[in-house]
Amino acid sequence: MREAVDLKKAYRLLNHGPTVLVSSAHNQKRNVMAASWSMPLDFDPPKIAVVIDKNTYTRELVDGSGEFALNIPGRALAAATVAVGDCSGRDQDKFEQFGLATFVAGKIAAPLLEGCVGWLECKIISEPRNHQLYDLYIAEVVAAWADVADFSNGRWHFAAGRERSIHYVAGGAFFETGEAFNVDE
Amino acid sequence: MREAVDLKKAYRLLNHGPTVLVSSAHNQKRNVMAASWSMPLDFDPPKIAVVIDKNTYTRELVDGSGEFALNIPGRALAAATVAVGDCSGRDQDKFEQFGLATFVAGKIAAPLLEGCVGWLECKIISEPRNHQLYDLYIAEVVAAWADVADFSNGRWHFAAGRERSIHYVAGGAFFETGEAFNVDE
Repeated sequence: MREAVDLKKAYRLLNHGPTVLVSSAHNQKRNVMAASWSMPLDFDPPKIAVVIDKNTYTRELVDGSGEFALNIPGRALAAATVAVGDCSGRDQDKFEQFGLATFVAGKIAAPLLEGCVGWLECKIISEPRNHQLYDLYIAEVVAAWADVADFSNGRWHFAAGRERSIHYVAGGAFFETGEAFNVDE
Repeated sequence: MREAVDLKKAYRLLNHGPTVLVSSAHNQKRNVMAASWSMPLDFDPPKIAVVIDKNTYTRELVDGSGEFALNIPGRALAAATVAVGDCSGRDQDKFEQFGLATFVAGKIAAPLLEGCVGWLECKIISEPRNHQLYDLYIAEVVAAWADVADFSNGRWHFAAGRERSIHYVAGGAFFETGEAFNVDE
């Protein structure tokens, strides 16, 4: 069951470095792209950083709307993660193309992807120099969600038989998020 | 055996989102801290982004020297990763405190940590607004290294019985980098 994540704990959705899908919408258009290059940037209010190349259609929608969502896919969406990274949303609606179902976000217009394990709704903090020079976007996380079967009380606890988050390498190769272990503090 | 990583493939050391140890040196002082918040930022020349809090001693050394290294620890260094995140190098030499051996970097003064699976030597690109407002540092990767048993031809291939990279969650909890799998492109 999908539930809201306490915003102070939203960084923990990304702290382990999973690959994300960036969804966006503007002027009746929508798109989704894959991004390996994202990270938390602050706790409270939570901020994240993500690289959005200036050649992408996502870049147009994100610049137009000032918003995007980071969707955290599990292994069942790995093929779709590669596929949406290999084509442009200028030419087609990738959601229809790849049969990706969506649901409505709480605080932004971008659609959220069904079948993911976590979601962060983000509003851009305008930093034009970063956008232009580095394709780097900083955004505030305004809402976050996770399935309580996978993430609760600020912790991931991927169980056997559940989807786990994934980490892209290159050329269609991924690592799954692996074994959990603890070190005494 | 440690070998140089082709700089165009250096981003792949970080692409899967491992936790890193940031090592630094300035004016006969050295330090090491843990960082979950880092990511690749560009391919060629390779750049990375990392968050270095302004309250840390590392921040002083990094600002003073303009350099740092990202060391990618395996699970055997997980306890040390938590330990160096729980104290300040202002009060002690953490390398001595925690018995961390080092070796000399190729292009920067910061020491590199023995026992890691990969290393990126970085020179800061000065972006004072990012430093001040977001504790965010962008740097060019000027040299990179990995053990060829773990990383070769631009790919991680963690084998059974070898150290794997790790992904910090919170409170001493980690995930190991998990199962490798491929999606046809």
